[in-house]
Amino acid sequence: MATDSIFFGNLVPSSLATRGRVEKQWLQHFSVKTKPMYPRLSNGYRARAALGANLKAVEIPRQWYNLIADLPVKPPPYLHPKTLEPIKPEDLSALFPDELIKQEASTEKFIDIPDEVLDVYSLWRPTPLIRAKRLEKLLDTPARIYYKYEGNSPAGSHKPNTAIPQVWYNAQQGIKNVVTETGAGQWGSSLAFACSLFGLGCEVWQVRASYDQKPYRRLMMQTWGAKVHPSPSNITEAGRKILQMDPSSPGSLGIAISEAVEVAATNADTKYCLGSVLNHVLLHQTVIGEECLKQMEAIGETPDLIIGCTGGGSNFAGLSFPFIREKLNGKINPIIRAVEPTACPSLTRGVYAYDYGDTAGMTPLMKMHTLGHDFIPDPIHAGGLRYHGMAPLMSHIYELGYMEAIAIPQTECFQGAIQFARSEGLIPAPEPTHAIAATIREALRCRETGESKVILTAMCGHGHFDLPSYDKYLQGNMVDLSFSEEKIQASLANVPQVLA
Amino acid sequence: MATDSIFFGNLVPSSLATRGRVEKQWLQHFSVKTKPMYPRLSNGYRARAALGANLKAVEIPRQWYNLIADLPVKPPPYLHPKTLEPIKPEDLSALFPDELIKQEASTEKFIDIPDEVLDVYSLWRPTPLIRAKRLEKLLDTPARIYYKYEGNSPAGSHKPNTAIPQVWYNAQQGIKNVVTETGAGQWGSSLAFACSLFGLGCEVWQVRASYDQKPYRRLMMQTWGAKVHPSPSNITEAGRKILQMDPSSPGSLGIAISEAVEVAATNADTKYCLGSVLNHVLLHQTVIGEECLKQMEAIGETPDLIIGCTGGGSNFAGLSFPFIREKLNGKINPIIRAVEPTACPSLTRGVYAYDYGDTAGMTPLMKMHTLGHDFIPDPIHAGGLRYHGMAPLMSHIYELGYMEAIAIPQTECFQGAIQFARSEGLIPAPEPTHAIAATIREALRCRETGESKVILTAMCGHGHFDLPSYDKYLQGNMVDLSFSEEKIQASLANVPQVLA
Repeated sequence: MATDSIFFGNLVPSSLATRGRVEKQWLQHFSVKTKPMYPRLSNGYRARAALGANLKAVEIPRQWYNLIADLPVKPPPYLHPKTLEPIKPEDLSALFPDELIKQEASTEKFIDIPDEVLDVYSLWRPTPLIRAKRLEKLLDTPARIYYKYEGNSPAGSHKPNTAIPQVWYNAQQGIKNVVTETGAGQWGSSLAFACSLFGLGCEVWQVRASYDQKPYRRLMMQTWGAKVHPSPSNITEAGRKILQMDPSSPGSLGIAISEAVEVAATNADTKYCLGSVLNHVLLHQTVIGEECLKQMEAIGETPDLIIGCTGGGSNFAGLSFPFIREKLNGKINPIIRAVEPTACPSLTRGVYAYDYGDTAGMTPLMKMHTLGHDFIPDPIHAGGLRYHGMAPLMSHIYELGYMEAIAIPQTECFQGAIQFARSEGLIPAPEPTHAIAATIREALRCRETGESKVILTAMCGHGHFDLPSYDKYLQGNMVDLSFSEEKIQASLANVPQVLA
Repeated sequence: MATDSIFFGNLVPSSLATRGRVEKQWLQHFSVKTKPMYPRLSNGYRARAALGANLKAVEIPRQWYNLIADLPVKPPPYLHPKTLEPIKPEDLSALFPDELIKQEASTEKFIDIPDEVLDVYSLWRPTPLIRAKRLEKLLDTPARIYYKYEGNSPAGSHKPNTAIPQVWYNAQQGIKNVVTETGAGQWGSSLAFACSLFGLGCEVWQVRASYDQKPYRRLMMQTWGAKVHPSPSNITEAGRKILQMDPSSPGSLGIAISEAVEVAATNADTKYCLGSVLNHVLLHQTVIGEECLKQMEAIGETPDLIIGCTGGGSNFAGLSFPFIREKLNGKINPIIRAVEPTACPSLTRGVYAYDYGDTAGMTPLMKMHTLGHDFIPDPIHAGGLRYHGMAPLMSHIYELGYMEAIAIPQTECFQGAIQFARSEGLIPAPEPTHAIAATIREALRCRETGESKVILTAMCGHGHFDLPSYDKYLQGNMVDLSFSEEKIQASLANVPQVLA
């Protein structure tokens, strides 16, 4: 499956099976400054309960948290797809600005959030932490359910938490344009929003099928001034090649990535942005968990269980990493539970191996839980969870045993979403319905056992543009797509054999 | 135009021209309890500036403010469409629960917000008051622009501020179902949201054209469990009558009101809810202005100019009435400016006269600025501003000289909305684009004069379901609909001649 790599050169070895163990510490390549420590929480939360505390008075965190700094075992390096050596900063500079490359391999514990980024965050942050009292009542559960809601951002999800700093660092380096790919459009619209605020040009390659079928997200991007191209497009070599073979190609995320990366790699004033998976993206999302830590402390609650949905992993990492720090410090001991769709179960059914981040094999090799880079998930409604792999850092801490994972089929997710919408009022995006369904499972278990567990869950976005999915569910036309063992075995057979 | 009135009986006088002056004080019909006074702000705001104040720490107001209590001249009564006498509480009881009828004619200054309503408000309140720094910079203006954003409510606008208490008071009285009409769907979805939280049945008659063309709002209502009927429907006498004449009728708001009112009037366990115009609706919306007063005080700013869009008037009243109180008390002296569409200019081009609230003439007669109850506005994109009349209380204070009004065409509004979206990040609904366009006019005037006026404006909802309108504007296909003098004269000729 290894094909020409546009930004790493075009000489990828035809066989990857002979690669020896990677010993080199890739992090040493990157020079980083020491930053002041973030003030630690001194104790558990219940001891410092402040009843009647005004959660909205909690301030926006001023630093992102880098979990890598606290890990006893550091994550494996990314490998250059041509040399199979750990990548160096300069290998990434065609795609990303220097500051983001530094953050990608930083071992600093806390990284200051630039003032300009904080200023934009303040448009919608701090985000609400809400006790789901009406849902608890509906379920007749003794559990106390809290959800952290990220849907009030202008783009409607947690994605702007990273889009804003990514665009800002690009602007600081004098970059004029950024490019990306998008499927349903959550990420593309977040990047368009960020570019409009900082005056950068923004071009988005949107998978043709979504471009035609989901016009609202596209219109949102255009309202913010972005150019949106259906992918495959005639603008790039990669797109033209696909169109020559199939003029009516519906496109795929893999093709869209290829197009965006090609444009970034061949234009000096243009860089590429990715909405999940990479370390610096997960880093930026920790603003969610840092804020939530303070909010939980302010009301005197300690989570017994933290639940979030996982596609690429950035939403889940954003909420959970700061709590994992507290867990590593022995202050709290929540269970950390990732929820993925049964149709795309990279953690629960995939392998932990080096694989490409994209379908065409143009990105670095990353050690991650993967279903195989050419695995095409069934068309479930949670488009944001249809990714063949899991963020390398998430995969690493899963291997270390710091979190667990389960998979839930989509009809159970939408059933839970209807219960949530009709009791709490907010209509979730299809992605967080997975976290909601898992939360409901646990709350019902508490009803049986009588335990009053504190459950904290990630409501990472609203479903305003996903209402046709709700319609399908309410009409009784939604089905659970069966997961084929043959399909995954065929796909896993194409994972490169890197002995790392 | 006076036809059978379903809930007031079917003997409407054929001529209304002989009616004498109404002297009776209608307010005396209603018994009200005395409530504790709301603590007054002791001084102007600048004197009490608290720099760096955390706006989000401001608490949700615990009382609504009733401007009628402070008016030196009380508003004229509503008239019974049959007797032309001021209406009595019992005349309204087929449609509304007792507590809302009391509020409709209350002379109390402050009315306690029930705890259960406050609890639901806390899902999204306090709403943000945001300084539009990036817009100021874009316009290069010395003005300081603040906007109060109501789009974070689960239904996406300010409408739930009144939907929640309306449904709660109905629930308290043992009512099982509520009905309403809706055009584009902002109000219907807010009522569906409220009903889902309090367990009431909800039926919405949606104008057929909108039902077909704007599926997302309908799907939102259905997700919250409401029944949505295209209007005209076969369910009601009124609907069947229309369908007999024209089986393919696209419907109108007037027809939809007739259908909803018929169902409420003929079912003992069902009441009717209205989303604007009436006093109790305006009352509930004052939570916006009360909150904003405290937020402005917290940051030490005094508004020189308050701008909001006006259709029925509830959003504008909600923001401005508490500030008008402070103005009447001599504490501040802002200009209060209402902005309406040039295609439906009830304040700037209408007459101040008794007229029906609906097209078919089934409601009480209300003295208000009106274009005539059978005026059909051109199909502008701001569906929420397409109402032939203005709230009676708004019309009254306009007559008293406490506020001013202007009209702006829709292309200027969308031009402003694009500037706003690309600098501030939030995409406004078509209605508040009118307030934004007027704000931009004023900010540009300040650039000429060098004045650093403080402008406060109402951003009453997001435009997530209105993106096709943005598309039309961006494609250059939006036009300003010309306002016909003949059309308004024809319509005004049908306003009943009540000498009140």
